[in-house]
Amino acid sequence: MTGIALIGYGAMGRAHAMAYRDIGFHYGLPADAIRIVGVATTREETARAAAAEIGCDLGVTDYRRLLDRDDVHVVDVCTPHDSHAEIVIAAAQAGKHVYCEKPLARTLDEAECIAAAVRAAGVQLGLTFNFRFFPCVLHAKRLMDEGFAGRVFSFHGRYFRASYVDPQRPMAWRLRKAQAGGGIVIDSGAHLVDLTHFLIGEIAELRAVTGTPHKQRPKVKGSSEMEEVDVEDMAFVQLRAAGDALGTWEMSRVATGATNDIWFEVRGDQGALRFTLEEPNWLYAYDMRSAYKGFVRIETVGRYAGQLAPDWTAPVGVPRTHAECQYQFLKAIWERRKPSPGLDDGLRAQRTIEAVYRSAASSEWVKVV
Amino acid sequence: MTGIALIGYGAMGRAHAMAYRDIGFHYGLPADAIRIVGVATTREETARAAAAEIGCDLGVTDYRRLLDRDDVHVVDVCTPHDSHAEIVIAAAQAGKHVYCEKPLARTLDEAECIAAAVRAAGVQLGLTFNFRFFPCVLHAKRLMDEGFAGRVFSFHGRYFRASYVDPQRPMAWRLRKAQAGGGIVIDSGAHLVDLTHFLIGEIAELRAVTGTPHKQRPKVKGSSEMEEVDVEDMAFVQLRAAGDALGTWEMSRVATGATNDIWFEVRGDQGALRFTLEEPNWLYAYDMRSAYKGFVRIETVGRYAGQLAPDWTAPVGVPRTHAECQYQFLKAIWERRKPSPGLDDGLRAQRTIEAVYRSAASSEWVKVV
Amino acid sequence: MTGIALIGYGAMGRAHAMAYRDIGFHYGLPADAIRIVGVATTREETARAAAAEIGCDLGVTDYRRLLDRDDVHVVDVCTPHDSHAEIVIAAAQAGKHVYCEKPLARTLDEAECIAAAVRAAGVQLGLTFNFRFFPCVLHAKRLMDEGFAGRVFSFHGRYFRASYVDPQRPMAWRLRKAQAGGGIVIDSGAHLVDLTHFLIGEIAELRAVTGTPHKQRPKVKGSSEMEEVDVEDMAFVQLRAAGDALGTWEMSRVATGATNDIWFEVRGDQGALRFTLEEPNWLYAYDMRSAYKGFVRIETVGRYAGQLAPDWTAPVGVPRTHAECQYQFLKAIWERRKPSPGLDDGLRAQRTIEAVYRSAASSEWVKVV
Amino acid sequence: MTGIALIGYGAMGRAHAMAYRDIGFHYGLPADAIRIVGVATTREETARAAAAEIGCDLGVTDYRRLLDRDDVHVVDVCTPHDSHAEIVIAAAQAGKHVYCEKPLARTLDEAECIAAAVRAAGVQLGLTFNFRFFPCVLHAKRLMDEGFAGRVFSFHGRYFRASYVDPQRPMAWRLRKAQAGGGIVIDSGAHLVDLTHFLIGEIAELRAVTGTPHKQRPKVKGSSEMEEVDVEDMAFVQLRAAGDALGTWEMSRVATGATNDIWFEVRGDQGALRFTLEEPNWLYAYDMRSAYKGFVRIETVGRYAGQLAPDWTAPVGVPRTHAECQYQFLKAIWERRKPSPGLDDGLRAQRTIEAVYRSAASSEWVKVV
Repeated sequence: MTGIALIGYGAMGRAHAMAYRDIGFHYGLPADAIRIVGVATTREETARAAAAEIGCDLGVTDYRRLLDRDDVHVVDVCTPHDSHAEIVIAAAQAGKHVYCEKPLARTLDEAECIAAAVRAAGVQLGLTFNFRFFPCVLHAKRLMDEGFAGRVFSFHGRYFRASYVDPQRPMAWRLRKAQAGGGIVIDSGAHLVDLTHFLIGEIAELRAVTGTPHKQRPKVKGSSEMEEVDVEDMAFVQLRAAGDALGTWEMSRVATGATNDIWFEVRGDQGALRFTLEEPNWLYAYDMRSAYKGFVRIETVGRYAGQLAPDWTAPVGVPRTHAECQYQFLKAIWERRKPSPGLDDGLRAQRTIEAVYRSAASSEWVKVV
Repeated sequence: MTGIALIGYGAMGRAHAMAYRDIGFHYGLPADAIRIVGVATTREETARAAAAEIGCDLGVTDYRRLLDRDDVHVVDVCTPHDSHAEIVIAAAQAGKHVYCEKPLARTLDEAECIAAAVRAAGVQLGLTFNFRFFPCVLHAKRLMDEGFAGRVFSFHGRYFRASYVDPQRPMAWRLRKAQAGGGIVIDSGAHLVDLTHFLIGEIAELRAVTGTPHKQRPKVKGSSEMEEVDVEDMAFVQLRAAGDALGTWEMSRVATGATNDIWFEVRGDQGALRFTLEEPNWLYAYDMRSAYKGFVRIETVGRYAGQLAPDWTAPVGVPRTHAECQYQFLKAIWERRKPSPGLDDGLRAQRTIEAVYRSAASSEWVKVV
Repeated sequence: MTGIALIGYGAMGRAHAMAYRDIGFHYGLPADAIRIVGVATTREETARAAAAEIGCDLGVTDYRRLLDRDDVHVVDVCTPHDSHAEIVIAAAQAGKHVYCEKPLARTLDEAECIAAAVRAAGVQLGLTFNFRFFPCVLHAKRLMDEGFAGRVFSFHGRYFRASYVDPQRPMAWRLRKAQAGGGIVIDSGAHLVDLTHFLIGEIAELRAVTGTPHKQRPKVKGSSEMEEVDVEDMAFVQLRAAGDALGTWEMSRVATGATNDIWFEVRGDQGALRFTLEEPNWLYAYDMRSAYKGFVRIETVGRYAGQLAPDWTAPVGVPRTHAECQYQFLKAIWERRKPSPGLDDGLRAQRTIEAVYRSAASSEWVKVV
Repeated sequence: MTGIALIGYGAMGRAHAMAYRDIGFHYGLPADAIRIVGVATTREETARAAAAEIGCDLGVTDYRRLLDRDDVHVVDVCTPHDSHAEIVIAAAQAGKHVYCEKPLARTLDEAECIAAAVRAAGVQLGLTFNFRFFPCVLHAKRLMDEGFAGRVFSFHGRYFRASYVDPQRPMAWRLRKAQAGGGIVIDSGAHLVDLTHFLIGEIAELRAVTGTPHKQRPKVKGSSEMEEVDVEDMAFVQLRAAGDALGTWEMSRVATGATNDIWFEVRGDQGALRFTLEEPNWLYAYDMRSAYKGFVRIETVGRYAGQLAPDWTAPVGVPRTHAECQYQFLKAIWERRKPSPGLDDGLRAQRTIEAVYRSAASSEWVKVV
C-alpha cells in the first residue's frame, strides 16, 4: 500500500485525486494499492470537504501534519507555484517522495534548491508533465527514438489558449510574477517546453519576444481598481537545438478562438511528424522511405502498455494522461528507480524557461546549456 | 449512501466500476455517496480479483446473493445480451433499481418481459446509452430541442468499425445470434439507433439490407474448425421519420480503416448539424439565419451542468460519458423520478432494431411505430 | 486542326469553351490544334456575344448550320437534357464526333436511340464525366485497378448540395421531368453514378427512396403563382455490386450547409480509399499491408500524365477537369480509338439512373444488369 | 485591344499566357480584348514553340524587338530575378506598362532603380502577388478592412514546401544569390510577405534566423561535382507591426511532407481569422460578438465580383488566381489608375525582405519602416 498526501485541492488537486483512483482500473491493481491518506488546503472548510470527497480521514490546513505520518509515502504538490519550493523541500526532508505539478518552481534558483534538497534526502521526485502521456505523444516519442525523422531540419511547437483575451478577467496568482514566476511560458508553456525536450532533446540557444496586450486588469472581478500585470501573455521563440536544427515556439493565452491548442511538428530528412492534442489519438507521420507520398494519420489509441480495457478505442481525455503520469511515477517508486519525467526534466524545463525570460529581457540569443 | 451490485466484470463492468468512483470528483460528492457493494462474475477467481480491484468485500459467482442484500439499491448489469432478461427481471423482483448495458435484451419479446417486470416491481431502469453524454451530442440535443434545424429534410448516421475485418478473428458471443440477438445492429449499432431517437424522435418506417462477408470463422483462435456466423457485420438502412424526413444509417464492423467512427448529421430548412465522436468536443452547426455562410465548429467542452474542474478543456474521453450516464441515472433515483435514458428508450431502441431485422429478412419497408 | 461546334452557351458551354483553349497550355499543343469554329444558342443576341467571347466568326441560332460545315469535326452539346437526343443524333448523322454533357439523355429509351445513331454513323461519342479527372479520382482508379482494396466489402458515395433549400427558388428546367428527365439523380447525381461505375464496376441491383420537400415552387422569381415540382431533390439508394459488395448513395440538393460535397469510399479486405472533391488533391488510403495503421493522405497533385507546368502543386479546380476530359476525348479522336468516358459509360449511367427511378416508383429491388 | 509581350516562357510564363486567355471567359470579354502579340525566350527553338503554343506570330530571342512595337501595350516579365531590373526598366523607358512576376528585383537597390524608371516613364506596374486572389484571402481582406478582428494581438504566417529536401536536387538559379537575390524568403516567401502586408499592414521591425541544411549541391543532376549554396532554405522571423501586435513567419523549403502549405492567422480582441491555401475556398473566422463559440468555416467560393459562371462552386485552383491578378491589373490600365498590387506593394515587399536578410546577418532587430 502506497499512501499519498495531497497538498492543494484546486482543479489540479482534484484531477490528481481522481487519477489515483483510476489507476487501479486501468491496470488491474487492488483498490488499496494506492491510497490518499490526507489532504491539505488553506481553509478548514475546504479541507474537510476535500477529505470527504476523497474519502480519507485527514483534511488539514497545515500540510506539515501530513509529512509526519508513517503511512504517507508520497507527497503530491498541487499548490500555486510560489509554495512549491517550501513544500517540496519540507517533504523531501521528511523523507517522502514527491510528485509535483509543473513547473518545479518559480525560478531556476528555487528549482536548484529543490534539487539539492531532493538529492540530499535520497527521495524521488516526479513531475506532472502529463501531456507526454497522450497516445499520440507516446507514439511520436517511440518513432523519434527509432530515428524515424532522420536528421532534424526544424521543429515547431505551439500552445494557444484564449483564456486571457477578456480584459475584464480580473487578476489572479497566475498573472503575478511574485506568485507564478512568469506568465504563459512558465504556466501552460512549461508543457510545450517539456514536450520539445522529450522529443527533440536539449535546446542549445534561444531568442524570445514577449507581449502583454492587457497591461492592467481589475484587482477583483468587476472592480474598477486596476492592478499592473507584470507577466507575459504571449511569447514567440526562435530555437537552435543540437546539430543545426532550428525551431520555433508560439505561446499565447490571448489567442482568440483557441481552446487548448497544442501542436508539435518535426521535419527531418527521413520523415516528418505532426500532432495536435485536440486530436490526441492520432499521430501524423510522413515517411520518406514509404511508397506513399503523404502523411499517415496513425491510430495511436489504446497504446498504453499493459493497460486493460482493450475496447476503449474512443478518444482519450486529459484524466487518462494524469492517471498514466502518476502510474509511471508510482511504478518507478515501487521499482526503486528514477521516475520519468522526474527531477532532471523539471530542472531542464526550468533552465529553458529562465533562458526565455532572460532573452526577452536582453533581446539577445541566450545559451541554455 | 447508494449501494451498487455489479453483475459482470468484463471491459464494460470495469468501465462502469471506474465511472462510479469518478462521479464524486466530477460533482463534488462525498466518497461514500456511491459504493459498489459487491460484484458477480462467472468464476470464483475472477470474482475475487474484481472485488479486490473495486475494493469491496463481496466477489461472488451467484449474482442472486447480491440481490438479497439490503445495502444493495442498484443492480448494474454488464453481462452478455443473453442473460440481460433473467438478471434484470430477478433484480426488479428483488426490488432493486437496475442500470443495464445496452441493448435491453436480445429480442423485443425479451425486452417486453423486462419492461413488464420492471413496471410491476415499481423500480427504475436506466440504460447505458452513454454516447448521449459526449459534449457535442448534449449540445446538438439542446439545439434540436430549440428548433435550430427547423423542418428536418434528412438525417444521416454512421457507425463504422474495423473490428471484424480479419477473417481469422475467431467466434465469440457477439457473433452468435443466440447469445447476442444479432450483429452490428444490436451491438454497436444500438448506440446509433438511440442517438437518432434522441435527436430526431420516432422512426416511422425503415428498410434494411445486411451483409456478412465472412460467413464462417474459426471456432477458437487459430483453429481450422469453422463455425457459421449467423449475424450481420454490415447493415444499411433507409428511414422515414415523422413528417416526411428521410434518413440513412450505415453500420459496419468490417469497415477497413475505421476505428470507432460514429457520425450524425441533420439537414433542415433552418440549419444543419454534424458531429463525429472522433472529435467529441466539437459540434458543427450551420445556421441559415446567421450572417455567415458556413459551419461553425462550436466548442462544447466542459459543458456538463454543475461539473467542477473548469480547466478540463482538453478532449473528453469515453470514461467521462459513462460517469455522466451513471450520474444522471443515480440522480433520477435520488430524486425519485424516471431516469433518462430509461426503460422507454430501451424499448424504443429494441423495437427499431427488431424492425431492421424484420426488414432485412422480408426485403420490405417495415413500420416501427 | 480539329474544329469544334459548340451547341449551347450557358455555364457549361462557357466552361467547355475555356477548357478547349487551356488544353494547349497544359500539354504544349499549338494554339490552332483545337479551334472552336462556331457556337449555337437560342437567341441571336446571345449567339453573337458567345462568338465574340470565343473569338470565332460563327454565332448562330440554328445549330444545324454548324453540322453542315467541313471544318467542324466535333460537336459539343451543352444544352438542357431534353435536346440532347435530337442534337446528338443529328450530329452523328452529319458524320461528326460528339462530346456531350452528362447525362446522355432524359431516359434510357432516348439514350439507346442516341447509341444506335452514333454506332450507325461510325462516329465517336465522349461524355463530360469530368469528375473522373480530379487528381484524387485518377489516383483512386489506379489503385483500384491494381487491386489495392482487395475484395470490396462496401462502398459509399455522397453528393450533397444546398442549391434548392430555399423554397422561393423558382422553377427552372432542372425541376421539370419533361425537360431534365428527373431531379438530383439524373443531374448532379449522374457524376456520382459514373464515379461508382468507374471505381467499382457494374451495379447488380439497387433500391431507392426519393423525396421532394418543396413540392411547389414559384413559376418565376418572386411570383405567387406556383408550379408542381415533379422531380426528386433527395435520393438514398442501397446497392449490390458484383460479388456480394453492398453500397450506398446519398444524394441531396436540399442538404443545408453543403456546397458541392462529393465523397466516395471503398472498404475492402486489403485496404480502404476515401476522397472528397472538396479536397481534390488528396486521396485517403488505408493499406492493410502497411506497417502503419492509418489512412495516408496521398498527395495526388500534378499527376496528369504528360502535363507541363510541374510547379502547379496548389489546388486543382474544376476547369482543369474539363480540360482533361476534353483532352482525353480529343486524343482518342486523333488516335482513332474509343474515347473514355464514352458512349458505353453514358449508357451504363443511364441504365443505372433509370433503375433508381424504377425502384423509387415500385419500392422494390431493381436489377440493373 | 490590349497587346501583351511576354518575356520568359517557363512555368510562370505559360501560366500567365493561359490566364490571359481565360480572363475573357471569366468576365465575358471579347476574345480580342487581350492579345499576346509576341513572346521572348532565350533560344530560338523555345521561342518558336512558345509562339506556336500561344498562337502569336512573334517568337523572338531578343526581347527588345517586342518593346519597339506599337501594338504592345503591356510587357509581362516572367524571367529569373536577375533580369527583372533590366527588362522592366527597358520596358518602362519604351513607354510600356509592366506586369512583373514577384519579387520586383533581387535587391532593394535594384527595386528602387525600377521604381525610379517606372515613375519617370509615367507607366503602370503590376506585380504577380496572385495569392491575394484566392477567394479565402479576398474574404479575409474584406473582413480585416471592416475591423472584424478588432485590435490585433498577433498574426502568424507560414509557407512550407518540401521542394529542396532531397540533397541530390542539383543547383539551379533559385539556389544562387547572384541570380535569385536570396532563397526561400525572396522566392516563395515573397507571397507570404505580401499577404501579411495586405492583411495586417506595415511591419515595424523584425528579427530573423535562417538555415541551409544542405550547404552543397551537385552542380548538375547526378554530378559528383558540388557547388556551394549561398542562400537560405529556412527562415523564421519575429515581427512587430503597428501598435504592439507581434507576429511570426515560418518559411521552409525543406519542410518534409509539405506540398505548398501557406497558412495565415490573425488573433485580435474582437475576432480571429485563419486560412490555408490548401483549402482555398474556405475562410475560418471566429467572431467574439457572435452567439456561437467557434470558428465558422465560411464558404468563399465564387466570390469574384462580376464573374460569370455562377455554378463553379468547386475548388478554385492557382490558374484562377493568375487570371484574376492579371485582370485586375488590366482593368486598372484600362481605367487609367494605379494597379493593385502594384509598384508600392512590390517595393514594400522588397524592403521587408531586405530587412529579413539584414537581420539574419546581424542577429539584431531591424527596423523596416
